[in-house]
Amino acid sequence: MMKKINGVNLGNWLVLEKWMSPALFDGTTAEDEYYLAHQLSPEMFEMRVKIHRSEYITERDFAYIAHMGMNSVRIPIPYFIFGDRPPFVGCIDELDRAFSWAEKYGLFILLDLHTVPMSQNGFDNGGISGVCKWSQMPEEVDFVLDVLERLAQRYGTRKGLLGIQPVNEPLTDAAWDMFDISNRYAPVDPELAKGSAPITLEFLRDFYTKAYDRIRKHMDGDKYVVFHDGFQLHAWKDFFQNGNFHNVILDTHQYLMMAESMGCEQTQEGYLSYIQEYYAKEIAQVQEYVDVICGEWSLFNSLAVGVDTKGGQSVLNGMDFSQQDNRLSDTARKQLYRSIAQAQLDAWNQGSGHYYWNYKLLLNPANDPNWYGWDCWDLGKSVSEGWFPVPRET
Amino acid sequence: MMKKINGVNLGNWLVLEKWMSPALFDGTTAEDEYYLAHQLSPEMFEMRVKIHRSEYITERDFAYIAHMGMNSVRIPIPYFIFGDRPPFVGCIDELDRAFSWAEKYGLFILLDLHTVPMSQNGFDNGGISGVCKWSQMPEEVDFVLDVLERLAQRYGTRKGLLGIQPVNEPLTDAAWDMFDISNRYAPVDPELAKGSAPITLEFLRDFYTKAYDRIRKHMDGDKYVVFHDGFQLHAWKDFFQNGNFHNVILDTHQYLMMAESMGCEQTQEGYLSYIQEYYAKEIAQVQEYVDVICGEWSLFNSLAVGVDTKGGQSVLNGMDFSQQDNRLSDTARKQLYRSIAQAQLDAWNQGSGHYYWNYKLLLNPANDPNWYGWDCWDLGKSVSEGWFPVPRET
Repeated sequence: MMKKINGVNLGNWLVLEKWMSPALFDGTTAEDEYYLAHQLSPEMFEMRVKIHRSEYITERDFAYIAHMGMNSVRIPIPYFIFGDRPPFVGCIDELDRAFSWAEKYGLFILLDLHTVPMSQNGFDNGGISGVCKWSQMPEEVDFVLDVLERLAQRYGTRKGLLGIQPVNEPLTDAAWDMFDISNRYAPVDPELAKGSAPITLEFLRDFYTKAYDRIRKHMDGDKYVVFHDGFQLHAWKDFFQNGNFHNVILDTHQYLMMAESMGCEQTQEGYLSYIQEYYAKEIAQVQEYVDVICGEWSLFNSLAVGVDTKGGQSVLNGMDFSQQDNRLSDTARKQLYRSIAQAQLDAWNQGSGHYYWNYKLLLNPANDPNWYGWDCWDLGKSVSEGWFPVPRET
Repeated sequence: MMKKINGVNLGNWLVLEKWMSPALFDGTTAEDEYYLAHQLSPEMFEMRVKIHRSEYITERDFAYIAHMGMNSVRIPIPYFIFGDRPPFVGCIDELDRAFSWAEKYGLFILLDLHTVPMSQNGFDNGGISGVCKWSQMPEEVDFVLDVLERLAQRYGTRKGLLGIQPVNEPLTDAAWDMFDISNRYAPVDPELAKGSAPITLEFLRDFYTKAYDRIRKHMDGDKYVVFHDGFQLHAWKDFFQNGNFHNVILDTHQYLMMAESMGCEQTQEGYLSYIQEYYAKEIAQVQEYVDVICGEWSLFNSLAVGVDTKGGQSVLNGMDFSQQDNRLSDTARKQLYRSIAQAQLDAWNQGSGHYYWNYKLLLNPANDPNWYGWDCWDLGKSVSEGWFPVPRET
């Protein structure tokens, strides 16, 4: 690649996550966009998401991201972006506008298909918690390939396009247990969830190859196709070496809360040494045979929260963080964040760059101590707080 | 005053202005919040404003404003803030949260009662265009005094309170003609508008004295009562010299588009000389007998738009700006904005400081050339664009 990606995700804009904008879910018991759409009347649901989309990200945010010195945004989009899957509300107009904004400010967009029908991971951010059946539904796999091809046709020659990522975080069996899907993301309707299972690497390789063929032909030669590693960073060497690919990128997502679940010590030294020993070395190793980016990461860690979050569980998982005796001082917390920010940025630059998760959240920790320590997921806030070195200075 | 105010308005958060967030008015013909509330069903109206309020300003904005080096925010609030005037939706919870945010980030809030029933100016931002009858309705004047006293009781001893401004931009006769109220803000319902007239200085002096008495007693001694000048900056010397006031501020609003209407030449030299000859000198003169601030101003000017806007009229007033041959280069525009920003800041610091109008807008000029030149009303965007010197550097 010509240049390191220095980017940020525009998560929760076109694909909702309750914890990031709780007011959107007010008056419902929905934990995800699927049930929000099913609990509200069609008019009310459409109104909520339309107002949200018109406010959450606008031209001024693209101006700010460019001003910070970043060069790219990764935009999570839903499978119903073209508006053909009621009761969900399409958002292609919003994405059209985003391309104008990106081009005005010299930013490049990575389109990330973040959800698919009946989900590829069972996460709340996959659209429907606790369900993971998409890969077993051939017509829905075909539907997704069509969506990807339509996206490539629409944007494949746009100056502001960096590339297209066929699917976000498909959950393969190694990670299924680590994320404890069955317990942490219990399905609302067990009947609907029946048959949910991890996605096989075999399916994924086949899907990625088909997706590549469907979109590559519509895109300018300098655009990329980006494959998520399915939480198996080292499973792709043969795939890339044997495949006949032009301009492809491997995307891995690395969160310290996952590192904690793998045994990383919850101290500053623990995080720094994990970042150097694992993140930096593994990224460098993979970069030998394919461009690799870290498409999602954050400053979030349990030490800064003051309690073991058990892999990033919040008050929404029944945790109570309102009374913590072990909180760091503001100064110590800032120092911790800055050091692990710099270490991680250094690690990602062993590869081809990164996208922070996330640009913006609507948290309110001043009034809700349960969210103390969670606002570092918000890049804008983290820069204002001095937790994250201003990108143009890094 | 201890320190110059270096602040920004949080306009369009709790008091709507269509041009600043057009999506909120989608599907209606409403030009103001009054008709928006009357055209939508109560549920739909409440949903729109609630989602808007939850997204438009959040804790991260307070963090950013403090990070920029500002020390205060002026928050326009509506007369129905306590939720006792259906169909309008109260917003005292939002304001409570804002106080927590301000205190967390060391910012001070100036509460600005921006609207009153049947309006004090007939502007769209007074809540109902073309109507100006409040001062002729004694029960509504009493209602407003009650609202002010309740605000003082609730926030008068809060660390984060700078002061309370009893009413925004009451329109006295001198300005009634300049703003061309009857034509520029034509009423939807002429019957309802019948009897609209400018507010007299006599009424205003009496109302300000009553408001002062009602709120002063509930506030700590270091808090301020802030009076808008009714667009007559020099009409208040006797009032302050004869009145028995403690910690009061005179607030004047100065926009270059008004200066243009008064004959200011639409060139960089014209603006700079007007700012020095009028703004700076007059502010210095008034500061001799009362603390004076410029509570609203902006970079907006016709030269940067490329056409005479006739006092700041937009496409909403039937103007068409989509095809302009006279646009400045980006570099020249930036240089123009920066020079008139600095000159105006210098002028306001002849007094006790300023609040920029406005912190944020949701304009989309990349996709709608009719709004070219209007995004300088947005401080966040103006800083990102390099049009406005970062406040901490000024």
